[in-house]
Amino acid sequence: MSEFTATVTVRLKRGVLDPEAETTKQALERLGFDLSALRSADRFEIDLEATDADEAAERADEMAERLLANPTIHDYDVAVTEK
Amino acid sequence: MSEFTATVTVRLKRGVLDPEAETTKQALERLGFDLSALRSADRFEIDLEATDADEAAERADEMAERLLANPTIHDYDVAVTEK
Repeated sequence: MSEFTATVTVRLKRGVLDPEAETTKQALERLGFDLSALRSADRFEIDLEATDADEAAERADEMAERLLANPTIHDYDVAVTEK
Repeated sequence: MSEFTATVTVRLKRGVLDPEAETTKQALERLGFDLSALRSADRFEIDLEATDADEAAERADEMAERLLANPTIHDYDVAVTEK
């Protein structure tokens, strides 16, 4: 068993309104910054023991499916690195 | 001018309590998942025009300093990709 870190990034699906990101973008513009778009996402870094990276990715994927992401409005991706 | 995407990841500094991450970890454990730690972070993907990647990174860094991160409790990093 080795220790892995699985990074799950959870984003809103295209077309789902993100008022928080819109507000952040406007606040940056009020500070004088020039930007064309801003998207926000949640990132979870999960340390877990697994026999290999594939098993770690599979378990992180299941965590995203069952709890971290809401499949109606979110997309997610999983990246695994060995510690 | 080219279009770049700057990704700013904002994390709590080591030692700052993260009750939301702790609650998420416990919820995953209640679902039967085995994990040794979970950290949460905010991720902002910012589309902006700049002359080169260095300028894009510098501007994203300034956005993080001034608005996206709270230097008392947060660390952040910036990664830039050309679109």
